[in-house]
Amino acid sequence: MKPLLAEIRHNPMLWLLAFVPVVFVASRLAPEADTLLFALSVLAIVPLAALLSHATESVAAKTGDAAGGLLNATLGNLTELVIAIAALRAGQYTLVKASIAGAIVANTLFMLGASFLLGGLKHHVQEYNRAGARLQAGLLFLATVALLVPSAVAVSDSRDLTAFMHQLSVGLAVLLIAAYGLGLLFSLKTHREFFASAEHGDAGEAPWPLGLALATLAGVTVLVALISEVFVESVQGAALELGMSPAFVGFIVVALVGGAAEMASAFSGARKNRLDLSVGIALGSASQIALFVAPVLVLLSYVIGPAPMDLLFWPGAVVMVFIATMTAALVTNSGRSAWFVGTLLLMVFTVFAMTLYLLPPRAQ
Amino acid sequence: MKPLLAEIRHNPMLWLLAFVPVVFVASRLAPEADTLLFALSVLAIVPLAALLSHATESVAAKTGDAAGGLLNATLGNLTELVIAIAALRAGQYTLVKASIAGAIVANTLFMLGASFLLGGLKHHVQEYNRAGARLQAGLLFLATVALLVPSAVAVSDSRDLTAFMHQLSVGLAVLLIAAYGLGLLFSLKTHREFFASAEHGDAGEAPWPLGLALATLAGVTVLVALISEVFVESVQGAALELGMSPAFVGFIVVALVGGAAEMASAFSGARKNRLDLSVGIALGSASQIALFVAPVLVLLSYVIGPAPMDLLFWPGAVVMVFIATMTAALVTNSGRSAWFVGTLLLMVFTVFAMTLYLLPPRAQ
Amino acid sequence: MKPLLAEIRHNPMLWLLAFVPVVFVASRLAPEADTLLFALSVLAIVPLAALLSHATESVAAKTGDAAGGLLNATLGNLTELVIAIAALRAGQYTLVKASIAGAIVANTLFMLGASFLLGGLKHHVQEYNRAGARLQAGLLFLATVALLVPSAVAVSDSRDLTAFMHQLSVGLAVLLIAAYGLGLLFSLKTHREFFASAEHGDAGEAPWPLGLALATLAGVTVLVALISEVFVESVQGAALELGMSPAFVGFIVVALVGGAAEMASAFSGARKNRLDLSVGIALGSASQIALFVAPVLVLLSYVIGPAPMDLLFWPGAVVMVFIATMTAALVTNSGRSAWFVGTLLLMVFTVFAMTLYLLPPRAQ
Repeated sequence: MKPLLAEIRHNPMLWLLAFVPVVFVASRLAPEADTLLFALSVLAIVPLAALLSHATESVAAKTGDAAGGLLNATLGNLTELVIAIAALRAGQYTLVKASIAGAIVANTLFMLGASFLLGGLKHHVQEYNRAGARLQAGLLFLATVALLVPSAVAVSDSRDLTAFMHQLSVGLAVLLIAAYGLGLLFSLKTHREFFASAEHGDAGEAPWPLGLALATLAGVTVLVALISEVFVESVQGAALELGMSPAFVGFIVVALVGGAAEMASAFSGARKNRLDLSVGIALGSASQIALFVAPVLVLLSYVIGPAPMDLLFWPGAVVMVFIATMTAALVTNSGRSAWFVGTLLLMVFTVFAMTLYLLPPRAQ
Repeated sequence: MKPLLAEIRHNPMLWLLAFVPVVFVASRLAPEADTLLFALSVLAIVPLAALLSHATESVAAKTGDAAGGLLNATLGNLTELVIAIAALRAGQYTLVKASIAGAIVANTLFMLGASFLLGGLKHHVQEYNRAGARLQAGLLFLATVALLVPSAVAVSDSRDLTAFMHQLSVGLAVLLIAAYGLGLLFSLKTHREFFASAEHGDAGEAPWPLGLALATLAGVTVLVALISEVFVESVQGAALELGMSPAFVGFIVVALVGGAAEMASAFSGARKNRLDLSVGIALGSASQIALFVAPVLVLLSYVIGPAPMDLLFWPGAVVMVFIATMTAALVTNSGRSAWFVGTLLLMVFTVFAMTLYLLPPRAQ
Repeated sequence: MKPLLAEIRHNPMLWLLAFVPVVFVASRLAPEADTLLFALSVLAIVPLAALLSHATESVAAKTGDAAGGLLNATLGNLTELVIAIAALRAGQYTLVKASIAGAIVANTLFMLGASFLLGGLKHHVQEYNRAGARLQAGLLFLATVALLVPSAVAVSDSRDLTAFMHQLSVGLAVLLIAAYGLGLLFSLKTHREFFASAEHGDAGEAPWPLGLALATLAGVTVLVALISEVFVESVQGAALELGMSPAFVGFIVVALVGGAAEMASAFSGARKNRLDLSVGIALGSASQIALFVAPVLVLLSYVIGPAPMDLLFWPGAVVMVFIATMTAALVTNSGRSAWFVGTLLLMVFTVFAMTLYLLPPRAQ
């Protein structure tokens, strides 16, 4: 327990852990106070996500290169996955899909853009591993295409395609998971030299002992799962009370909450002029969501959901995801960055956020 | 006045200034002769635009680097702005929007393509500053995305979104102008070394004295404004008489007339193997229209227009602008050019022009 | 005849020639057995396409550089053209259009992807002429844009545009053929040094004598034309019996059958680490279909078709072609390849194939 307590003392973000018990108490005492429960659960999820991320990296560091990379790649977006599973069980498929699309957009535009901006404010021009970024952007592009084609086809066809969509979604989910596995084989085994510098771990922090890391992983996952239920139950009510559209909540708020811990790592890497790290986290996380989290959710919906979930997205989300991945591909193509590149990525994100914020309800 | 007269004697394009008084006389004598007035005002605007461009550069040369760059960037598309304001005051929002989208397409496809072709007919392979072009193409891409997202969202949503569109358009206009300001800060101040070779000024011409330049700037702007009114009033009638669709007139004719002066500079740069100059003018002008002229027109519509103007474009125009900026990004990525690259850019422009020319009326 | 017989003995694919007479006998004896005739004609077309390809290259090798290049470029997709003409004469415009779009997608995703995968399984990282690939991908991108703009405009406009579409299609066809001619002038004459390493010919095989090559070219073209009629007549019935959608048949099956011979060359080049050859065949063939075969079919439809054919594609096909060419442009941009790049291209192709396979009939 000692390294855990030392970490908590050291890292102010973890002081937010105090909100974890508060959420449970509040959800008992005031189950109707949606906005309060929403705010409390956001504040509680952020430090838990940071702990999860640190524990995953510690286990990965102990288990050696390939297995560790596999672990990092699989559990790297555990918070997003747990939140989405809570929404899936509640049958809130619109929220699940919005949070998938939103996570891709938030990682490629907000996380990457803020990293470029924060790094660029301190360093005149920053260089990063162009080959690695290009390969990852390429993977992400292809993954996104795979994810979005069904929606594009459905838009251009006015018939009822429900059965077709379910069949296609399952087929695509299997295909995407296979591609994800082959991608791990490629980046961890056959061609790992290309990905060397974009490691997920934050070199500054010492890894925990294996036992503590595993216990943290298990315990915190349970806590995130419990709080996610409060979060999912309160989020729509809070959105209504705060005057936010459900599209905005799913796309922007959930995505930023779920990715908070990784953003902290990416931003700190950028400030230390280790932009490889930031680009790797941002694009790696985005492609993990597209290639792993999304298809797992589709398949899980047959087991734990009230009904099967398909991969049919709201057309506006399709456009946004497509623009986001293409922007990332174009921007990372040069391997150089300055503050204005980050500003423009953030601006595109703001355009999306503004559009979704102003969009009248019932739009999803 | 002497340098002005010398310039006029020297530059055959300026002999067209003789049409300026003819326009005013003709608009009194034959206010119904739309085709005649249209042709005359086109012939009169072209030399005035050239004068405006030269005067702006002269003022810029006198006021020093940063302020001069700012001036050039702000007044570089003054002709387009003045014509669009005339259309705005007349409530012809379809024409305003078509001319915005058309100017982006004409700059990225026609101006760039003709520069590559003209340069390539004289020089086997031409190289240009790849970093600068890539950055500018990136800016343009992001600006275009920002401009087009509302239209894309609106297309995918069948509800009445008028109020939403107006709120969003004002928000985007403010955002774009802020991005434009930050872009100037970036290219003129913090990272100006990247843009060094893509200066707007044509080194071959001597700058005028400040007084003359300022007087020309003021006087010619008034003349352009007056002739623009004749142009805007006659353009629809002329289109009808000439059998051209309004989409073609707004998108192709107005854009080519407004950009004639800059095209002359870009083409001459390409012939002199100074392709940096040509690419800088073409892409810089396109991004200025997207990031500065368009949002200024949206905000101005609240002051001088009969009704607020939004940023909702005709879907066909959205597709064309998107393809044009993506083509520019792909083509300028290599930093090399030959005649066939220019031919293909011109071919894409011809595809658009042909489509709009043949499109039956009432299509906008 | 001796080299021809030697070739047949040497190359197992040519043993399939035995199916050529079988097709003719079967089509007499069992004209209603669609699935059988379909399978037999596929088996017969594949070796004939290989012979055509070899004969074309032999003629090209004899007639010298420029004329040979012209021949290769014009007759390189003769099989696809002959099949499409058979479908055109039968008035099956949906099949013609699907096979055009499908050939572009199959060449850029399947042929390129399988080349990368097969090459990558043998060689760790493969490099190829980046400048050449980039130029060809650029040409292909621009050609595709030209081909798809009318569909995009039509989608965004709900009026009846039949007359407009026919006018536009003829105009575009003329424009595309002109661009194709200029492209040949560029790649064979003024700038041929850029295309040097991407020659179409397979250096391993000795060219045939001119007389034999010309006779083979003529005789085999007639055979392909005759078998194509059986193929086109049986394909829809076979699709029904096999439970495949017409979209799947046109887009996937016809495209793979028509391109089988070129695929064999491209794959063999990739295994021999001559990836320039593979990329050249794949992208060159795709742009030839877009710039030459498609417009020729439009113009031919006025002469031999029951009615004029336009260039209006099913929106889903537009999306797929657009994604395919953009993927090719992004992927070939780096000039390097490994097995996973090929895997991902194949995955995108599988996404398309799966979508079309599952799509319920009446979707085109």
